[in-house]
Amino acid sequence: MDNKFEIRAWQASARELVAVAAGREPASLVLRGVKWVNVQSREILPGQDLAIAAGRFAYCGSDASHCIGESTEVVDCDGLYAVPGFCDGHMHVESGMLTPARFAEAVIPHGTTTMFVDPHEIANVLGLHGVRLMHDEAIIQPVNMFVQMPSCAPSAPGLETPGAEITPVDVEEAMRWPGIVGLGEMMNFDGVAAGNPQLLAEIGSAQIAGKTVGGHYASPDLGLSFHAYLAAGPADDHEGTREIDAISRVRRGMRAMMRLGSAWYDVESQIKAVTERGIDPRNFILCTDDCHSGTLVDDGHMNRVIKHAINCGCDPLIAIQMATINTATHFGMERELGSIAPGRRADVVLTSDLSELPVLQVYARGIKIADRGELLVQTPRIAWPESARKSVKIGRPLAADDFRVQSPPGAKTVRARVIGVIENQAPTRALVEDLEVADGAVQGDASRDVCYLALVDRHRASGKIVNGFVGGFGYQGEMAIASTVAHDSHHMVVVGTDRENMALAANRLAETDGGVSVWRSGREIAQVRLPYAGLMSDRPAEQVATEAKMMNAAISACGCSLNNAFMQHSLLALAVIPELRISDMGLVDVTHFELTGLFVED
Amino acid sequence: MDNKFEIRAWQASARELVAVAAGREPASLVLRGVKWVNVQSREILPGQDLAIAAGRFAYCGSDASHCIGESTEVVDCDGLYAVPGFCDGHMHVESGMLTPARFAEAVIPHGTTTMFVDPHEIANVLGLHGVRLMHDEAIIQPVNMFVQMPSCAPSAPGLETPGAEITPVDVEEAMRWPGIVGLGEMMNFDGVAAGNPQLLAEIGSAQIAGKTVGGHYASPDLGLSFHAYLAAGPADDHEGTREIDAISRVRRGMRAMMRLGSAWYDVESQIKAVTERGIDPRNFILCTDDCHSGTLVDDGHMNRVIKHAINCGCDPLIAIQMATINTATHFGMERELGSIAPGRRADVVLTSDLSELPVLQVYARGIKIADRGELLVQTPRIAWPESARKSVKIGRPLAADDFRVQSPPGAKTVRARVIGVIENQAPTRALVEDLEVADGAVQGDASRDVCYLALVDRHRASGKIVNGFVGGFGYQGEMAIASTVAHDSHHMVVVGTDRENMALAANRLAETDGGVSVWRSGREIAQVRLPYAGLMSDRPAEQVATEAKMMNAAISACGCSLNNAFMQHSLLALAVIPELRISDMGLVDVTHFELTGLFVED
Repeated sequence: MDNKFEIRAWQASARELVAVAAGREPASLVLRGVKWVNVQSREILPGQDLAIAAGRFAYCGSDASHCIGESTEVVDCDGLYAVPGFCDGHMHVESGMLTPARFAEAVIPHGTTTMFVDPHEIANVLGLHGVRLMHDEAIIQPVNMFVQMPSCAPSAPGLETPGAEITPVDVEEAMRWPGIVGLGEMMNFDGVAAGNPQLLAEIGSAQIAGKTVGGHYASPDLGLSFHAYLAAGPADDHEGTREIDAISRVRRGMRAMMRLGSAWYDVESQIKAVTERGIDPRNFILCTDDCHSGTLVDDGHMNRVIKHAINCGCDPLIAIQMATINTATHFGMERELGSIAPGRRADVVLTSDLSELPVLQVYARGIKIADRGELLVQTPRIAWPESARKSVKIGRPLAADDFRVQSPPGAKTVRARVIGVIENQAPTRALVEDLEVADGAVQGDASRDVCYLALVDRHRASGKIVNGFVGGFGYQGEMAIASTVAHDSHHMVVVGTDRENMALAANRLAETDGGVSVWRSGREIAQVRLPYAGLMSDRPAEQVATEAKMMNAAISACGCSLNNAFMQHSLLALAVIPELRISDMGLVDVTHFELTGLFVED
Repeated sequence: MDNKFEIRAWQASARELVAVAAGREPASLVLRGVKWVNVQSREILPGQDLAIAAGRFAYCGSDASHCIGESTEVVDCDGLYAVPGFCDGHMHVESGMLTPARFAEAVIPHGTTTMFVDPHEIANVLGLHGVRLMHDEAIIQPVNMFVQMPSCAPSAPGLETPGAEITPVDVEEAMRWPGIVGLGEMMNFDGVAAGNPQLLAEIGSAQIAGKTVGGHYASPDLGLSFHAYLAAGPADDHEGTREIDAISRVRRGMRAMMRLGSAWYDVESQIKAVTERGIDPRNFILCTDDCHSGTLVDDGHMNRVIKHAINCGCDPLIAIQMATINTATHFGMERELGSIAPGRRADVVLTSDLSELPVLQVYARGIKIADRGELLVQTPRIAWPESARKSVKIGRPLAADDFRVQSPPGAKTVRARVIGVIENQAPTRALVEDLEVADGAVQGDASRDVCYLALVDRHRASGKIVNGFVGGFGYQGEMAIASTVAHDSHHMVVVGTDRENMALAANRLAETDGGVSVWRSGREIAQVRLPYAGLMSDRPAEQVATEAKMMNAAISACGCSLNNAFMQHSLLALAVIPELRISDMGLVDVTHFELTGLFVED
């Protein structure tokens, strides 16, 4: 095989595995003297040897001497714990602003060897082609990066136009790709509960293919809508936040994915179902959902989530099961990965402590790929086509006047709808403000914290711009910030106190193929460069994290004191969460799922 | 649908399930006020309602009023426990001497709603065609009867000629049949550990098809052979008898199936791994392997096994998990059956007590099929072809002289190898006895408990007979017993004190298309009629059990006091268990896996 990380199916290596286990052929690697963290039996077994061949465990037991030949690498593990490589049950690579190769590079030293990835963001920009690019880069990684086919693009049909749409035909096609493990989170839970045939067809395609249907029931309502959603077939859900959410799902055969992401803290409340109520833990799974580069660099990945679960009072072995065998079983891969057992992929984390989980060495498919935080391999990348690296198409250079809101003829003030950002929350408020008119244009008002807001079509080069107003950022002075990360349609969203700076920021992102650009007084003061679909970078996580930190500092320097100003910015077009959002079709009243006007009619 | 028990896939019923759960359409059935035995969470939830549509659960929760319409049947369950229908993880229908339809009929009133069936015996008689017949009758049952493709026919290649052979090509073909869930128990564990390419190919075919590979490692040796077998891929094993057997398997990711059959008692020792050692129970599964009709009629089926596990100290909820969700998960069917949860097949046992498990009502796919032990439906049967009902072909009527063993010229006595039956054990002893010669024929000797033994080719009408001697039955007087149930090649095996009676018994079975016939002093004193492949009857279990009891009484009347004389008889040709057996090729020295002569050479 050209790629030493390429792994053959168990049956294609069975002859070799049997021969090694029987002592007729030498293993490629033997880890001697480990404490075998056995997630199958939930035991710790000291003094064990693990013999590996063809990237898989061939023998796991008390003495692998018979598997050792001249060609065998023997590693004395001196009593370290051997833990199965960690699995992330649900996550979006794009949240790290990194390509799959760079994401893998960032998380491998933290012990992650398996990820179940939903490329929902790129699907909104590039459609099936974008999913295929993520898939193709994912399957060549030295660790296991499985892809779920996104189910919902657009997220808000009829209220927005993303760069591309995913159809049931796309879903059916993707189910035949080698690295597709299921359907990505089915977010349109209202549509599913209403029996929308297109959504049920997408779910059905995944079920017919024998693959796992990801759920996303983002509501605290556990009434009929919840039960109807369950009956449609989603097999897991990561949107629970309360103990009762986890319990209600697990009782009904839907696995509870508990997330600790950069901005998600849903493990502590839900894990009480296991630690306090004694519910069978087999159906609980840990995941991250969304991790920023900074979190990956500073805090870790699944090792952070497992540690957190342990700190919440969970037995370490059970917490590890929740990020290894439980995940593997959920995706029908229990015989392929998620435990240290014969035939499984030889993905191992060596650690000296089961509570703190220091990740000393990481093996994937029997090859050491990280040592004390240092990555020992290059994560391979595909050649991304220009269509993916030149995705920001605004049609023409923009000018300040493109962001001008024309007032009704003769008006001196207008009553305008203003999106009100709420600190630490994803929902917004639908505010109404009386705004001044000058030279026929409605004016923002920094003194009352009302900024200009614009959504610039960046997918079709139409030159179309939708203007509005937003409050809550606290921006002061002449500034603007533009971003091509703008969930879920990922157009370009621009916020500013000044139209000149807005045009400068927007034009800069068009030149640099996307990302985030912050301007003050006619000068760019920070930029995060994300030229891959306008969402991701192929530079190392450290560099992206540094740029993101500088961006946050620049935002603060412009007077904003929100905890997660960029996240709030990037959600201004998320037309599925109430109350008021902006889209390429206008302002969206998400409470009523309809378009609404900028001006309040008397 | 013509067959009211036919069940569509979840996705084909999703619209209806969602509508019922949401309260837009009525359920077909609502079970009100149950104690929901929740094997997903391992809880008992009182005061719950279960709404069913399209044969599946649509809603499971505290109040199903919204699912009830004019057409809904509502059953007030008055606080009874609702338990998922019981699953048998590994079993042979032929052991009950019943066709699949008759077997289902016998076990449904005991609460069994799912069986994983390995038609290994018929495969040895009729090959792939026989497996297909079992498969075709299994898939039309009102309960779930899944078939595993037998992996090993002949069981002892090179040492016997069964009626048909199973090849890797057969296995590959069967993997495409709708009711095939995996490969049947891979019994040739020595061959697997030796890396036999044909056996590995069969395992690979099942793995490529995404199906489960059944194991059968029938040895107490947990050394290299065991580890080599594990590395080849069998996913379960029911041959463990000791606690260490179960633990060794589970630690290495092979599920431990613990059996309580008519003659297997392997739960009590192995379940200590869970009850005393605290090992995670998720990988333990209960099964029967082999149940005689009498056991089914008198003692029950999986209800008996679960009760036994509880009596061994297992928590009732965990014991029930071992016969429901654990089994379903093992076969990749957790989203299809094995729990009471939305979307799953509505297979329910109603019981008043979780320890004694009285089976009050049984529902399958939402239809009540048994009530207090009474079956409410007919189990459908296929039209079995004549080839399957006329399978006993001995070529010509036999005479006493066909069972004559010619002595070496001039000998007055000979030293002969004699198969020595051992009470309550499957292995035999390789005895050597000095036997008299009269008229040039070697004589049996009832006074020393040495009987005549013959294997009559009943598959190819060749007229071939292999003669020998057997000790240990204690038969007296002029008698003979013949059986076409003769594991694993299922030729006809005849034992007797008298050659005339042997010929009579053999000829009778040829006339009646197989079964067991007992003769004394020229009269038939008992017969079990098994015309389906010479192995099974399509009469009710009660009738077959009665005939079997009369057969046992007849055997006793002939002077035999063994506990399981018929089982010992039926294993005389089992050329895979030491020490000495008979086959159509001669005497088999199973210790050395080679043919041997009847006479000991000096």
